[in-house]
Amino acid sequence: MSEQQQQQQQVFSSKFRVYYEDTDAGGIVYHANYLKFCERTRSDFVREALGYDQEQHLQEERKGFVVSKLSARFHSSARLGEVLTITCVPFALRRTTLQMYQEVRNEQGVLLFAMCVTLACLDFSKSKPTKLPEAFTQELQPYLWPQEPEMKL
Amino acid sequence: MSEQQQQQQQVFSSKFRVYYEDTDAGGIVYHANYLKFCERTRSDFVREALGYDQEQHLQEERKGFVVSKLSARFHSSARLGEVLTITCVPFALRRTTLQMYQEVRNEQGVLLFAMCVTLACLDFSKSKPTKLPEAFTQELQPYLWPQEPEMKL
Amino acid sequence: MSEQQQQQQQVFSSKFRVYYEDTDAGGIVYHANYLKFCERTRSDFVREALGYDQEQHLQEERKGFVVSKLSARFHSSARLGEVLTITCVPFALRRTTLQMYQEVRNEQGVLLFAMCVTLACLDFSKSKPTKLPEAFTQELQPYLWPQEPEMKL
Amino acid sequence: MSEQQQQQQQVFSSKFRVYYEDTDAGGIVYHANYLKFCERTRSDFVREALGYDQEQHLQEERKGFVVSKLSARFHSSARLGEVLTITCVPFALRRTTLQMYQEVRNEQGVLLFAMCVTLACLDFSKSKPTKLPEAFTQELQPYLWPQEPEMKL
Repeated sequence: MSEQQQQQQQVFSSKFRVYYEDTDAGGIVYHANYLKFCERTRSDFVREALGYDQEQHLQEERKGFVVSKLSARFHSSARLGEVLTITCVPFALRRTTLQMYQEVRNEQGVLLFAMCVTLACLDFSKSKPTKLPEAFTQELQPYLWPQEPEMKL
Repeated sequence: MSEQQQQQQQVFSSKFRVYYEDTDAGGIVYHANYLKFCERTRSDFVREALGYDQEQHLQEERKGFVVSKLSARFHSSARLGEVLTITCVPFALRRTTLQMYQEVRNEQGVLLFAMCVTLACLDFSKSKPTKLPEAFTQELQPYLWPQEPEMKL
Repeated sequence: MSEQQQQQQQVFSSKFRVYYEDTDAGGIVYHANYLKFCERTRSDFVREALGYDQEQHLQEERKGFVVSKLSARFHSSARLGEVLTITCVPFALRRTTLQMYQEVRNEQGVLLFAMCVTLACLDFSKSKPTKLPEAFTQELQPYLWPQEPEMKL
Repeated sequence: MSEQQQQQQQVFSSKFRVYYEDTDAGGIVYHANYLKFCERTRSDFVREALGYDQEQHLQEERKGFVVSKLSARFHSSARLGEVLTITCVPFALRRTTLQMYQEVRNEQGVLLFAMCVTLACLDFSKSKPTKLPEAFTQELQPYLWPQEPEMKL
């Protein structure tokens, strides 16, 4: 995303270090683990920025977010010991879905991974999509981008 | 992919059971783990169908396949104890890249997950793309689809 | 365990291949993943040998097995592409707990990992230990060792 | 370990949050993942407290630490969203091995997991134990416990 866009909107980010568990025999981070780093950041965003308790909603209402679609580009590789910064830009809020654009960068700011993910709110008791919780969508407003961010996919 | 297309070409598949490690607190398979099941199947394909030894090439030449791009759709959820069948259809062979279309289905044949993945051959010593090994591309021919398969993304 | 002991009792085993996801930047299987291979084998044992459906009991009664204690020795390392054989010897059945001794060997029969694990039956709704299910303990009898196996810990 | 012991020696600790990836269908942290949290803390200890670069030694000398033995007790379960504090107490330094006692506690200070792990320094090129690096053992001195800590195993 451009510098200008970043200044117009708040962009949430989290930092995570790469440990042995994240790497594979190629000496780099195993490809599926970028999705884990991105999920951690979405969980942090939902909890820290929105003040929304996923665990409570999962326990009490059997409702939660599931990934329904994603597109990703692996630009470069992360290595053992690096600290990664993962951003999270929500856009395209619909009745039962929300899209997020996420980037993973290393300490030098090099783009390693970019992903656009569509999240759906699921009623686990029926295995059916359900309306995004009001408490969630209201808190989301200050972070929601009115337009699709420029995506490096 | 259509029945007709499947009959025209050999389609490689592997089966894997869902264990506790694959699930999360939502009671279903954690989203990133479908990528693991798909990678296992690609490794099986490369070893069993093509007779190509990834470990040897990694050790001796520091070359291996990395995921450079992917698009995925999560259709439905797998649960603890289910046996999943994962297919692997290679197409669009280029000098340094190859695409594969993969589907994950449960024992009832229900489509759970579909993914199109672009693989690049990487020289790990230089962190640079390199030509796909001749031994690999020759063995691939009988499995390579001449056209893009119909993808449920 | 000795050859003689193995002949006296049935010993259940499962085979699993080592994929990229199981390895780390050291080029070998990540240490915690041997516990995953062992858990897969215990799940196979419970389902195949005992005909007991863990998923059903988890869903309907919110009961399941948890690891309460373990001791393990890492003898040698598994590598990418190897097929591992994991055994499972149940012994020391108590009211709410059961012990299992497990070994992981490679295709040459070399011992890589040995573990003694104590499993407890847990009522997840109360987070309390509960009596092992009758259906489980009855089916276990033909596999239960009357004495502690010789353990390579 | 007792309050008194903790005051006598510096005790290193790290904090990690529990994300979806760490949980399983039982709704709690998957048992093998406590070993991952402990490994992250050992890596943090080696890097932050000792100023020792594992990645560099792995790349340049093909040397690294492997787990050779462990004993663990699972006292209680961690849940989604909890922040865990993991301690790391090194003791029993030998020529090629070192022991560490580690505890995992939740935000209320409740003990969830305790483990004693023996680490061996391995020469990956020969798959053989090798002398612990001088740079490592010197920096370790201020943290090394002269006696075995009281272990809740």
